[in-house]
Amino acid sequence: MNPKYQAARSELLARLQEIEDLKSVAALLTWDQATYMPPGGSRARARQLATVGRLAHEKFTDKAIGHLLDQLQPYVETLPEDDDDAALWRVVRREYDRAQRIPAQFMADVANHTAAVYMAWTEARPANDFPRLRPMLEKTLALSRQYSQYFPEHEHIADPLIARSDFGMTVATIRPLFQRLRQELLPLVEQVTAQEPADDRFLHQYFPEDKQWAFGLEVIRRFGYDLHRGRQDKTHHPFMIKFSLDDVRITTRLDPHDLASGLFSTLHEAGHGLYEQGINPAYEATPLADGASAGVHESQSRLWENLVGRSRNFWHYYYPRLQETFPEQLGKVSLDAFYRAINKVERSLIRVEADELTYNLHVIIRFELELALLEGTLTIAELPEAWRASYQEQLGVTPPDDRDGVMQDVHWYAGLIGGGFQGYTLGNILTGQFYAAALAARPSLPDEIAAGDFAPLLSWLREQIHWHGSKYTALELVERVTGGPIRLEPYLDYLWQKYGELYRLSRPKVDPVPGA
Amino acid sequence: MNPKYQAARSELLARLQEIEDLKSVAALLTWDQATYMPPGGSRARARQLATVGRLAHEKFTDKAIGHLLDQLQPYVETLPEDDDDAALWRVVRREYDRAQRIPAQFMADVANHTAAVYMAWTEARPANDFPRLRPMLEKTLALSRQYSQYFPEHEHIADPLIARSDFGMTVATIRPLFQRLRQELLPLVEQVTAQEPADDRFLHQYFPEDKQWAFGLEVIRRFGYDLHRGRQDKTHHPFMIKFSLDDVRITTRLDPHDLASGLFSTLHEAGHGLYEQGINPAYEATPLADGASAGVHESQSRLWENLVGRSRNFWHYYYPRLQETFPEQLGKVSLDAFYRAINKVERSLIRVEADELTYNLHVIIRFELELALLEGTLTIAELPEAWRASYQEQLGVTPPDDRDGVMQDVHWYAGLIGGGFQGYTLGNILTGQFYAAALAARPSLPDEIAAGDFAPLLSWLREQIHWHGSKYTALELVERVTGGPIRLEPYLDYLWQKYGELYRLSRPKVDPVPGA
Repeated sequence: MNPKYQAARSELLARLQEIEDLKSVAALLTWDQATYMPPGGSRARARQLATVGRLAHEKFTDKAIGHLLDQLQPYVETLPEDDDDAALWRVVRREYDRAQRIPAQFMADVANHTAAVYMAWTEARPANDFPRLRPMLEKTLALSRQYSQYFPEHEHIADPLIARSDFGMTVATIRPLFQRLRQELLPLVEQVTAQEPADDRFLHQYFPEDKQWAFGLEVIRRFGYDLHRGRQDKTHHPFMIKFSLDDVRITTRLDPHDLASGLFSTLHEAGHGLYEQGINPAYEATPLADGASAGVHESQSRLWENLVGRSRNFWHYYYPRLQETFPEQLGKVSLDAFYRAINKVERSLIRVEADELTYNLHVIIRFELELALLEGTLTIAELPEAWRASYQEQLGVTPPDDRDGVMQDVHWYAGLIGGGFQGYTLGNILTGQFYAAALAARPSLPDEIAAGDFAPLLSWLREQIHWHGSKYTALELVERVTGGPIRLEPYLDYLWQKYGELYRLSRPKVDPVPGA
Repeated sequence: MNPKYQAARSELLARLQEIEDLKSVAALLTWDQATYMPPGGSRARARQLATVGRLAHEKFTDKAIGHLLDQLQPYVETLPEDDDDAALWRVVRREYDRAQRIPAQFMADVANHTAAVYMAWTEARPANDFPRLRPMLEKTLALSRQYSQYFPEHEHIADPLIARSDFGMTVATIRPLFQRLRQELLPLVEQVTAQEPADDRFLHQYFPEDKQWAFGLEVIRRFGYDLHRGRQDKTHHPFMIKFSLDDVRITTRLDPHDLASGLFSTLHEAGHGLYEQGINPAYEATPLADGASAGVHESQSRLWENLVGRSRNFWHYYYPRLQETFPEQLGKVSLDAFYRAINKVERSLIRVEADELTYNLHVIIRFELELALLEGTLTIAELPEAWRASYQEQLGVTPPDDRDGVMQDVHWYAGLIGGGFQGYTLGNILTGQFYAAALAARPSLPDEIAAGDFAPLLSWLREQIHWHGSKYTALELVERVTGGPIRLEPYLDYLWQKYGELYRLSRPKVDPVPGA
């Protein structure tokens, strides 16, 4: 590398390090706020988060970053596309150009507005008072549409919003995938729920929190989550958060009367944590030290939570240990009964409590409502009723109020409308595709899982996915790992195989939607 | 205020807020490092602390701050000296001018050097390997002398270093105070230790940590420490740390075989916490939201730890409760025996474990060694032997090694040499003076303490000391509170009264040192 490039590269890395350090600091402020901060600290904490966020934004949108990128372009063009420097340059260029499109004043308006909406939501939701939020949400929608106008080249108005978390995906690619998925899920859910529901009452006995905590930790340690480079704490809403590649923390929530809730939340967040703990350490303090997209991130959490954690093989190994931990509660419950209970399917109101099958229906409802709002075919005033109608039509349940209806999820009340939900279902779809690729590479995986040996699966994920951080976009990564585009079929195969076996069903023929 | 001043004042406050937010963020990084950070996080954490520290320094030394101070000077000159704006201007002017004297490169050199020395100390101390540290410490001493050279107007070379934590105090004012204190302490210690030592073996039974924790929390809550605006965690070295005036946290350390150690550490840190929780909320996010000096801060911790926490009146109220908490361990131990045990005096090696009487001798030894090093009458090579000789002469004990001798305290191995110790003994002296003033204003305080009512004492401290933050210098504050300069006599009266009663001693006449 010639000295001119070397100097520019060093300066760019130093600037990126400073920005990443500020982002890590913001993450620590957030983590502390959710875990240990005394209530009195909240006002100053909001101010500190705003200060640090503003500094990071100022430093990233500094024209000097653009100049350095320009200076480095001829160097990067000599590199193979697969080179880390080239990848870093592309990611920074993309993010920098995106940030330059958005006026600082607009970002500040969004931050102030969404902070106010969030505060109002925390009060209006318990009071079931959607009308209070309506004018605020109308402004949120206007801001969301405005955001997309900064990217006038978009094909669909939701695309720039989707690109913020799932870069490369668009309405044109997601909508047919989701339509086909729903088309397959509806009859499956219909058949499953037509049968006697699984008895899961024994999961709602009293399970002391300390034992739940210890069991969950034991499982995720065995998965490979490194407690030397991470830790688990309790929060109201579980999450994963990173302060550096060597400090990736998770949180969980335990309910002494609900064994499954805390356990699967722990496995889910550990899946996110395993992803970030596995990123190439050379990417530390650069934008490459991140997940490839919201969807890919969710694929990692869901893979460990569902494809591993709710599998018969997993419990073949772990159920005797769980019975030892809770002999009074589970001593007389068979493995088969337990396996059915943790995979109970029911039409329900709440996304985050939904089972593996119906979960995607919750997500698709939200995704389509978002699109309708952005397209202008639905107004905020009509939203609560549209929510109810969608639930009635697709899930067969009617929310008795807006609290557990349109005000259920925080997303629309803590940011822009659009782009916040598709990642969950993209992640689920990818679990099927990634796991099928892993199985093809190593057919012994199920037996290893049944023997409590998760190292082979983790190694494969590390090498194929984790290691690369955000070097590749989601679509590039899927192409590398599976040899093609995102495909629904492996996920459908997985669902039909699992639930077909559980409920003795055989898969009907469905006309494929073109392109899915 | 005319609009020009108003604009300058607003801009200055906005800049100060940003700087204070960065300092709070650095404090959170530090707190997390000591409490919950997984070991793997340490490398990135050092980098993040350096980034945030550098940004705060850059922003505070920005010439714009100087211009704003200049612009505001005519406005401030129209204000009464006691006005908050005037005080803020003085404090910022003082700190800004000090910061301007020090080249940024020098600060960076000091930061890098002291980080390296600290790392080396953590290894060399357990290995009893002072020779390894010697060349590093010689550089630290050279840097310390260099620091003072940036303030060529100093009277004594240690004065600029002392001013960093105890602004307004100088060698000329501290040395005679400390000499007189030693002159008084030596015969008192002599007489006390000539008697049969108090039996404190019962303090070293097994005391379950959770009960120690709950008891300590109950006491400090009753002191007035607000857990809505603070919290307590466990760390290896206890400390108090502030993230905002509404989030002032403390840490403690519990030893299941040493009841006094954890309890008095808790009371000590709570004293620091009460100080900062009591600062005028109008000072939030400005440099006034801080203690007046290291000495004044220590006076608040020591007052609650010793003058309250080791008093007979306090235990008159709390000992029955402690016995209820630990009936097996203390049920048969009388209040009198307990009171003697927690006030046991012995000549010992370790400062942080020393009793109330000998503690100051440990500090004065360090203070005088620092002065000798800075004056050039002592070399680093001679320091270990000088340490041993001082301990032998003044405390009658000889450190068997350098680990518990010259390498005992972190101070010289984590910063400059000079100015790090005097605050401890200045604080002790001030406890006597402040408490005497409190008693004069409210003679019923001892009875209130004996009834477990700490609110009157806290109210007095709040109003007289806490509320003002760093609005006044230590000397101004002492003048306001006691009507005169720092005086040793009230502290000596307190010590003689307490230990005279405990050991049936009467105070000999000592020729006063002029000026003390």
